[in-house]
Amino acid sequence: MRELNSIESALIFIVLGIAVAGLLYAIFLTSQILRESKGSQKMQEVWGYIKTGANAYLSSQLRIIAVLIVVLVVVLFFSVYVVNPTPYAIEHFCPTLAEEARATVDAETIRNQVAISNPEVAAAELVLLQENAVVYAEEAAIMQAGLGQLTNPETGEAFAACDAARTNIAIGRAGAFFMGAVFSAMVGFVGMNMAVQGNVRVAAAAVDEKRGYADALRIAYRSGTITGMLTDGLGLFGGTIIFIIFGIASPDALLGFGFGGTLLALFMRVGGGIYTKAADVGADLVGKVEAGLPEDDPRNAAVIADLVGDNVGDCAGMAADIFESYEVTIVSGLILGLALATVTRSPIWIVFPLVVRGIGVLSSIISTYLVRSTGSGKDALAAISRGFYSAAVMSVALFAIFTVFYMREPGLNQGNVIWQPLASVIVGIVLAIIIERVTAYFTDTEHEPVKDIAKNAQTGPATVILSGLATGMESSVWAIVVIAASILSSVVIFTLFPITDANGVQIVDNFAAVLYGVAMTGIGMLTLTGNNVSMDAFGPISDNAQGVAELAGESGGKGGEILESLDAVGNTTKAITKGVAIGSAVIAAVALFGSFLTDTRVVQLGLGIPLSQTLFGTGINIASPIVFIGFLIGGGLIFLFSSLLIRSVNRAAYKMIGVVRRQFRIPGILEGTKTPDYAEAVSISTQAAQRELLPLGVVAILTPIVIGFGFGVAALGGFNAGIILAGQLMAVFMSNAGGAWDNAKKYIEEGNYGGKRSEPHKATVVGDTVGDPFKDTAGPALNPMIKVVNLVSLLVAPLVVTTEVTVDGSGRLVVLAIMLVLTAVILFAIFRSKRTDPETEQMVEAVTQAGAAD
Amino acid sequence: MRELNSIESALIFIVLGIAVAGLLYAIFLTSQILRESKGSQKMQEVWGYIKTGANAYLSSQLRIIAVLIVVLVVVLFFSVYVVNPTPYAIEHFCPTLAEEARATVDAETIRNQVAISNPEVAAAELVLLQENAVVYAEEAAIMQAGLGQLTNPETGEAFAACDAARTNIAIGRAGAFFMGAVFSAMVGFVGMNMAVQGNVRVAAAAVDEKRGYADALRIAYRSGTITGMLTDGLGLFGGTIIFIIFGIASPDALLGFGFGGTLLALFMRVGGGIYTKAADVGADLVGKVEAGLPEDDPRNAAVIADLVGDNVGDCAGMAADIFESYEVTIVSGLILGLALATVTRSPIWIVFPLVVRGIGVLSSIISTYLVRSTGSGKDALAAISRGFYSAAVMSVALFAIFTVFYMREPGLNQGNVIWQPLASVIVGIVLAIIIERVTAYFTDTEHEPVKDIAKNAQTGPATVILSGLATGMESSVWAIVVIAASILSSVVIFTLFPITDANGVQIVDNFAAVLYGVAMTGIGMLTLTGNNVSMDAFGPISDNAQGVAELAGESGGKGGEILESLDAVGNTTKAITKGVAIGSAVIAAVALFGSFLTDTRVVQLGLGIPLSQTLFGTGINIASPIVFIGFLIGGGLIFLFSSLLIRSVNRAAYKMIGVVRRQFRIPGILEGTKTPDYAEAVSISTQAAQRELLPLGVVAILTPIVIGFGFGVAALGGFNAGIILAGQLMAVFMSNAGGAWDNAKKYIEEGNYGGKRSEPHKATVVGDTVGDPFKDTAGPALNPMIKVVNLVSLLVAPLVVTTEVTVDGSGRLVVLAIMLVLTAVILFAIFRSKRTDPETEQMVEAVTQAGAAD
Repeated sequence: MRELNSIESALIFIVLGIAVAGLLYAIFLTSQILRESKGSQKMQEVWGYIKTGANAYLSSQLRIIAVLIVVLVVVLFFSVYVVNPTPYAIEHFCPTLAEEARATVDAETIRNQVAISNPEVAAAELVLLQENAVVYAEEAAIMQAGLGQLTNPETGEAFAACDAARTNIAIGRAGAFFMGAVFSAMVGFVGMNMAVQGNVRVAAAAVDEKRGYADALRIAYRSGTITGMLTDGLGLFGGTIIFIIFGIASPDALLGFGFGGTLLALFMRVGGGIYTKAADVGADLVGKVEAGLPEDDPRNAAVIADLVGDNVGDCAGMAADIFESYEVTIVSGLILGLALATVTRSPIWIVFPLVVRGIGVLSSIISTYLVRSTGSGKDALAAISRGFYSAAVMSVALFAIFTVFYMREPGLNQGNVIWQPLASVIVGIVLAIIIERVTAYFTDTEHEPVKDIAKNAQTGPATVILSGLATGMESSVWAIVVIAASILSSVVIFTLFPITDANGVQIVDNFAAVLYGVAMTGIGMLTLTGNNVSMDAFGPISDNAQGVAELAGESGGKGGEILESLDAVGNTTKAITKGVAIGSAVIAAVALFGSFLTDTRVVQLGLGIPLSQTLFGTGINIASPIVFIGFLIGGGLIFLFSSLLIRSVNRAAYKMIGVVRRQFRIPGILEGTKTPDYAEAVSISTQAAQRELLPLGVVAILTPIVIGFGFGVAALGGFNAGIILAGQLMAVFMSNAGGAWDNAKKYIEEGNYGGKRSEPHKATVVGDTVGDPFKDTAGPALNPMIKVVNLVSLLVAPLVVTTEVTVDGSGRLVVLAIMLVLTAVILFAIFRSKRTDPETEQMVEAVTQAGAAD
Repeated sequence: MRELNSIESALIFIVLGIAVAGLLYAIFLTSQILRESKGSQKMQEVWGYIKTGANAYLSSQLRIIAVLIVVLVVVLFFSVYVVNPTPYAIEHFCPTLAEEARATVDAETIRNQVAISNPEVAAAELVLLQENAVVYAEEAAIMQAGLGQLTNPETGEAFAACDAARTNIAIGRAGAFFMGAVFSAMVGFVGMNMAVQGNVRVAAAAVDEKRGYADALRIAYRSGTITGMLTDGLGLFGGTIIFIIFGIASPDALLGFGFGGTLLALFMRVGGGIYTKAADVGADLVGKVEAGLPEDDPRNAAVIADLVGDNVGDCAGMAADIFESYEVTIVSGLILGLALATVTRSPIWIVFPLVVRGIGVLSSIISTYLVRSTGSGKDALAAISRGFYSAAVMSVALFAIFTVFYMREPGLNQGNVIWQPLASVIVGIVLAIIIERVTAYFTDTEHEPVKDIAKNAQTGPATVILSGLATGMESSVWAIVVIAASILSSVVIFTLFPITDANGVQIVDNFAAVLYGVAMTGIGMLTLTGNNVSMDAFGPISDNAQGVAELAGESGGKGGEILESLDAVGNTTKAITKGVAIGSAVIAAVALFGSFLTDTRVVQLGLGIPLSQTLFGTGINIASPIVFIGFLIGGGLIFLFSSLLIRSVNRAAYKMIGVVRRQFRIPGILEGTKTPDYAEAVSISTQAAQRELLPLGVVAILTPIVIGFGFGVAALGGFNAGIILAGQLMAVFMSNAGGAWDNAKKYIEEGNYGGKRSEPHKATVVGDTVGDPFKDTAGPALNPMIKVVNLVSLLVAPLVVTTEVTVDGSGRLVVLAIMLVLTAVILFAIFRSKRTDPETEQMVEAVTQAGAAD
């Protein structure tokens, strides 16, 4: 790759500046929000409970996660002593050595050999094969030189090993992992805190007669925007700074960065999802269904836990999750960009995604600040959508201008504009919009599916469940078709219009180019992450604001109406943005698949394996029985995860039901003269969330390791394929089935089929309760789960292929024995997750018996 | 392959004889059953309704299917004019020509070329590569000679084309397809009729004081055995006769045979599944829940439809489905066996599966006839299980004896016993037993999962649904792990102990050998199909017998007790055999995957494509974006199917509810003084079953065609992988969740958590209703669906690769245009399936309104 020219260097620093600007914007908004009034004494009291609950969750969560993070930082640091640095790292840290190593490669001989062994290949394709073969040979030579295993042909002595590469990569991997984890945690926790800070202020503004709708909307939306800007600011900052420091040696650090972010996101999703739904199901089943109390009634012991849950699940979990998607798409974009940069010897493939991301952040800053309402009616949704679409138009326009002026390289595409990446990015933006439409079609009250579920409520809960399940499954089909179509578009763009050299001869093979295109589609999908997260967080903030006002007894009158209307808008914005995170998971995963192959190839070539026998040469042949085994287990793992998550919510809700029922028996509580013990319910949700983290984390991290070392790197590829397919299908199925049930209930509450408290309404309450862990726990947790597994696979793949070659006979038995031990650990984790806790079991039984005796 | 020796020829005819013996045994049992008393006048009247309903379903079903079958017979007949016959067909029908073509291959040159282009390969492996290359070259030459495209090196003229091959293969494909379809239909329809004949006689025997328990058990079990023996008799007969007629040219005809059977099975499963559940849900929701009538109450208009449903769903659908599994495993076993036979030049690989199957049928004949009860207690289950396990032991012993005495070949395994296929067959038997245990663990009332669902019933239907879904998902994980383990066992057996020649040099490559092993595991799994189907059919027969007695008013006293006890045993036997059919689907599908690659290779080599560029050479690389697209769509198709099936049951049940409610309003019906119009309910179920057949059949057949021609043969491979993974996971998930809900209800009915009519019981009724279409419609329909898609893919793959090579520029646009038209047809079929019928809609609305006004 040629050096960055001055314009490119400037561009990269401008992108870094935009990332910082995004963060400063978030700080600016924070100070704005914190200046707003916190409302009446009573409101602040209620809010105090929520804040305490949220902080308790936060600290207990961090304590568990911190241990694992420290362990993994150490493991990643020392991993370089087992997995050697890549040739790119050696080139970056020991450029002279790399140059000398490259000089030892006899390019002419390689070209001749390729020509001889491919007699039937067309001339243009042959050139491509030859040039690739030369590049691979150079990489192998550099890698061996870096290890001190290459002989200097002039002196006859071995080149001195490049220790700088090893040390720097160790620091890079561990440091970037730590940064990814910390950023993800920050996004989640700051986002949650700002949501907590925001909700009481939204409530205060809404009930303040001098302020009202416009102010409440602004505060709610901007509180969400803080999280939004943190998400893309930190994501862009991390990716850019890694590239600035490590240059072509970035992939290692980028993988670490991605892994840190996804792992934290998995924890936040799992923890938040269990917390929020345990509280919600518990509060609803006992409070609303059994005791007939309204939503957010202060006599319900689980009500504070429920409000805290909205913040930890829908804000912290969601933000960390989208951060992770944002991060992984840039990670895969940069890694695949670097691969293209090596072949074409031009850095435009890396500069492009970074600048595109920068433009997206810029558009988000401008458009989110302009979101405001002047009236008091239903224009909130219109204002938010206007913000979103104007940002989309602005971004595309800037992308196009940037492409026309920058995306040229004398030696590429015959000197013409390199427009293909732009096309893929635009596909991504369109994909995001279509997926939002598909999600809306299947889950909002305006369309056939939800109406059909409501109609089925006339024949009871069973038909509600069945039609909801059918709707969820169908929505998954169309989502996957749309995703397949967008992958196809990259295939079409980069196969029909390949990247050529100055003479119009193709110089990037279709495989690499198409994967780069897919990565750019992922970049495009998440262009407007700032807006998306703002819209997403708007939901729980306005939901909570209503709760605060309700609990403070100030939900009457105009203020109450304003809050109700904001809540309705929040439900819509939250729903429509949901599909994007999951869709991007598949796109990112497909792109990472490419890295999996190219990464393994580099290591295998360095180990002296001929190209045709590397994983890149053989491909991940799904018809091979051993690959198929990995593939089956991958799909199974998704079902295992879903099952464990649903069970854990069920189990936690069961405990919560026991607590709420017992509290209702305490004299004075149902009469409203005594405050229930909110903290007990909060701690039950916290504990429930906590105890699942380690088992599920262990399963997600260890399973790919066992598959890789137990069945080989090709089976690990099959395993990933299984994870992606089943993960996408189940995630969309569960999320949308849950969303559809939720809205079918709302549709009936609007007065259809008998309205509230009718039999059909009760049937939809059952649907909604089933949908809760579907849409807020299991479904969304699969998104980070897919990528944790992908990234762990990418991280262990080099070690797996090294072991295959260098470890023999008895060593293999040792590896096998370790894998059996790890399998036992996985099984233990599964059974630990499934285990019920006999003490609470007895407590709940006792309360239930007492209830039956009443 | 060498000719069969006289022992082998005799063995094949003995196998054919055993197949015929199985059929004769079925006829003998039929005459036995028909001689039994049909009971009282009243019983015969009730039975008359069931018979009429079943026959109405039968004829309406046949009318629709017949059209499609005729169309496909014609298409398959003429398909040989587009897809050329295989080299094996040419060798079989024009042996001299094949010999001459083979002589034109310069084996020495090929061996040298292979040696040159594989400089780094170990000596033993090189020999393997060389011999394979020679075989491939011979196959290509034979194929070209058969088309008249090969020049005779001596005369310089082209060889005369082998028209006999074309004609015979045309007849073979079309004829075998027809035979497969007819056999599958026969198994289903005869099985259903015998169940109908059996149930009244079981009821009569049970209530007859002079006869009682032992007689009733014998009649019920033997009625089921008739279907069981038809299933394996016809399956074995078809496979054997095709091999006798076509020899090494069998694969074409075998694929046709498999396709006919699976397609019919799909129709029977879909039709039967919708019929039975529409009737069941309708009868339960209105009769039991709304009107509070007991099960099988004659005042319920849907009660006869419900009883008919048990026969058409659980007998006809189930039998056709298992027939199909039985057939496809022998098809894949023979095809892969022929591939090994070509390489090793020995027919033992084909004789082995046929004889193994023959032994299985023999064991079934003996063991089923010995099932009888002498007491009157709970020993029915013990007697049936004893029959099953004694058959298993008998089979394994005979397999071992057969292997020791027959499985030797001077040129193979250094003349030692070839024990590897036996090992794989035994793995299959063990696998079947383990899968039955896993199914039992997750679905019977003795174990934790079902008890847990029942416990969750205390907190209402939502938690019942959630814990059932979690249970279903988890069961799917363990089922897939067991299947993966059994595939792994073939890998271990055939890789650690490869098939060698006389000198101990490996002569079968690992890929082909392992796939053969997997196919043998499939053969092993279904060894005891006769027993399995008998056990399966025992369920609905005893269920129906109880219904007949109930409706005839003769269910009191000791007879009623006997019938109840038989029904309980039937529920258990039905449940434990369920997992086997689905498990065998994956095993068969993995084996077929191998055929997919080898079939394509033959055609591609014949087209002059170098081996490394055939699909066999490149593999189905799941990391390739275009393969991934096929893969995603495959997974999506499973969700689409599930969704459509659940919806159609829901829709039909909705209509049924309207009818039953309306009938209840007719004066005299609820009082029991007037008989409701059973025929109306029967016709609603029949119509509902019928209208889904064509749309779903069209989707299953056309989608692989569109993927193949639209995205290429590798994408078609990815598509199949997606179908298999998602299909297995969803099929087990839905079947077991449904089974677990069903039994959770039964567990509560046994008196736990408040027993019948308590709130927890009502909650489990909701679970059971949701589970009905899961376990009896969507779940089981996925099994034949997976294999229809697999077989269509196998049938079109040769055409796809031919088109890729021979069709150019404008021709490709025509192909693309046709694919777009087919896509439109698929979409039309999907929307047709989803369409609601406005007339009935209004009818139901009117009844519902009237009900609300009451």
